[in-house]
Amino acid sequence: MEPFRTIEWKNKRVLIIDQRKLPVEEIYIECATFEQVAECIRNLVIRGAPAIGIAAAMGMALGALEIGNNCSYEKLKEHMKKVSQHIALTRPTAVNLFWAIGRMNDLISECREKRVEEIKNLLVTEAINIQEEDLRTCMQIGENGSELIEDSSVILTHCNAGGLATAGYGTALGVIRSAFRKGKNISVISSETRPILQGARLTTWELEREGIPVRLITDSMAGYVMSRGIVNSVVVGADRVASNGDTANKIGTYPLSILAKHHGIPFYVAAPTSTIDGECLSGEEITIEQRNPEEVTHMNGKRISAAVEVLNPAFDITPAENIECLITEAGLFRKPYSESLGKFKRKDQ
Amino acid sequence: MEPFRTIEWKNKRVLIIDQRKLPVEEIYIECATFEQVAECIRNLVIRGAPAIGIAAAMGMALGALEIGNNCSYEKLKEHMKKVSQHIALTRPTAVNLFWAIGRMNDLISECREKRVEEIKNLLVTEAINIQEEDLRTCMQIGENGSELIEDSSVILTHCNAGGLATAGYGTALGVIRSAFRKGKNISVISSETRPILQGARLTTWELEREGIPVRLITDSMAGYVMSRGIVNSVVVGADRVASNGDTANKIGTYPLSILAKHHGIPFYVAAPTSTIDGECLSGEEITIEQRNPEEVTHMNGKRISAAVEVLNPAFDITPAENIECLITEAGLFRKPYSESLGKFKRKDQ
Repeated sequence: MEPFRTIEWKNKRVLIIDQRKLPVEEIYIECATFEQVAECIRNLVIRGAPAIGIAAAMGMALGALEIGNNCSYEKLKEHMKKVSQHIALTRPTAVNLFWAIGRMNDLISECREKRVEEIKNLLVTEAINIQEEDLRTCMQIGENGSELIEDSSVILTHCNAGGLATAGYGTALGVIRSAFRKGKNISVISSETRPILQGARLTTWELEREGIPVRLITDSMAGYVMSRGIVNSVVVGADRVASNGDTANKIGTYPLSILAKHHGIPFYVAAPTSTIDGECLSGEEITIEQRNPEEVTHMNGKRISAAVEVLNPAFDITPAENIECLITEAGLFRKPYSESLGKFKRKDQ
Repeated sequence: MEPFRTIEWKNKRVLIIDQRKLPVEEIYIECATFEQVAECIRNLVIRGAPAIGIAAAMGMALGALEIGNNCSYEKLKEHMKKVSQHIALTRPTAVNLFWAIGRMNDLISECREKRVEEIKNLLVTEAINIQEEDLRTCMQIGENGSELIEDSSVILTHCNAGGLATAGYGTALGVIRSAFRKGKNISVISSETRPILQGARLTTWELEREGIPVRLITDSMAGYVMSRGIVNSVVVGADRVASNGDTANKIGTYPLSILAKHHGIPFYVAAPTSTIDGECLSGEEITIEQRNPEEVTHMNGKRISAAVEVLNPAFDITPAENIECLITEAGLFRKPYSESLGKFKRKDQ
């Protein structure tokens, strides 16, 4: 089947596949302004930490195009500060958002001597670079993680840490893709991931397109399948990894880590090193986004619950001790993470 | 607010509130035949182990009314065997279904010397008795369990072990009702309970009607709320309790028990002694009903997932060791359950 495009830069426009509509409809939204891109991030048209980073960078590039070539560097810089702030306010948890905005702004700072027209072109190129790097990064994560996946095994995954959450290959699903492409006889159990159903709608869709066997469960069935011995490993993505290894990921990840531990099943986190937040000492410092109650109380615009108070945290924190291994493009990190992650410094840091 | 009726015998008809439509619509289905009652059990118009037992008994009574008063006892008995088998095939896990059918058949066996007309009347009375006993039983469960609920505490419950699952008072929600009615300042967190959303649709509806503060979460958020220290106890119902204390309950109960254990939160099961299956030695012997995949893949008739294979077990097994206490109308049972339950013999056994 033809590969899908999560996000694409095309003729001074950003095309984004509308993940809220998948798998029922395959619709691409065309963004001409940075505000439209920000709206797509806020509304979950695009989601997944690396994909949000790419979208933020492309949004910044669109913002830069608004400045005339005859404007001053200061004017550009001032405008891009406004653009950065607007995009930064969309979602608080994924570190990639801030990382991508920072990288684009660093480029601007380095270009003080250049013509504005040239800087604008460089920003567009940088955004596309971020996307291409992400693709290579995910393929390397897949390569590194695939050795952990045993032949004839069943992998449980949560949410969508897939091609749709990245430039196209995925982190957790990148590991699964690479293992599958190497000929390992594997299958996947995908938890539906309420309230947004990224597992039911996106992960199953992606895996089926690739021909990887997949079965769907509700989030509440993870204990059942583990207790029946039909899960050999758990692989999930991450939205932010603290320097001690504590990991923020989609709500429902933390209980899976407890269940995996209880059943002696290895629990892996797959994420690019850009997800590691060296400034963040532990999970306690990570802001958990609280989202709109209607995500829980409504489905397709129809009420599915009584009208009561709702808690809707979008993420939870998996303590480092529950994570068997952190799979990155730079290799596998193991406990104690303060030590293994401490030794590692990203090139761009 | 006016109390609702879960199920009611009225003028040779059985009225059942359609729990599939709640909380959006409050509709009562009128059953004139045992087949209609069986269909209501199969289709989850009525659900919850004790309520299923009451429905089965009333279905049996409706079946008996089909026999003319001039028929022989043998004819009645033969007919009721057919009725029993039909009703028994609706759902496999809740022991109350078989218990109620057995109790109605025992009555028939005891009435060999009686006129058919009289037996029919006795069967109707017996079905209504089962309902009234359930109400008293649940109020006693509530009374017994309320002492375990601390003042100013937050109780997490799963699915609907409420008035809608019983004759009107509830088991797990009976405990919560009694604690609340005694003036304890409590609040409830209800997990939505995918795929059928009994928590989101029924538990929240019932508790709100009663004025008990309730907040709704998705099933995947239980780990989050426990890790934040805002849950003081977990109270759930049961569909079948083995003689060693292993308990079958709504899918998602088992992982809650693991999470509760991990966080040092007491995990209570509230159930009538009719739920205890003395014939069943452990959870391994309990048949887990696998239900229609469309319950997972569709919502309100619309597809909400990709078209992939689905697992849809309706129940899971919570090992006895995870259960702090079994709350029944006959008192509180504690570990080791083989011993405490072994000493107990139901009057009707």
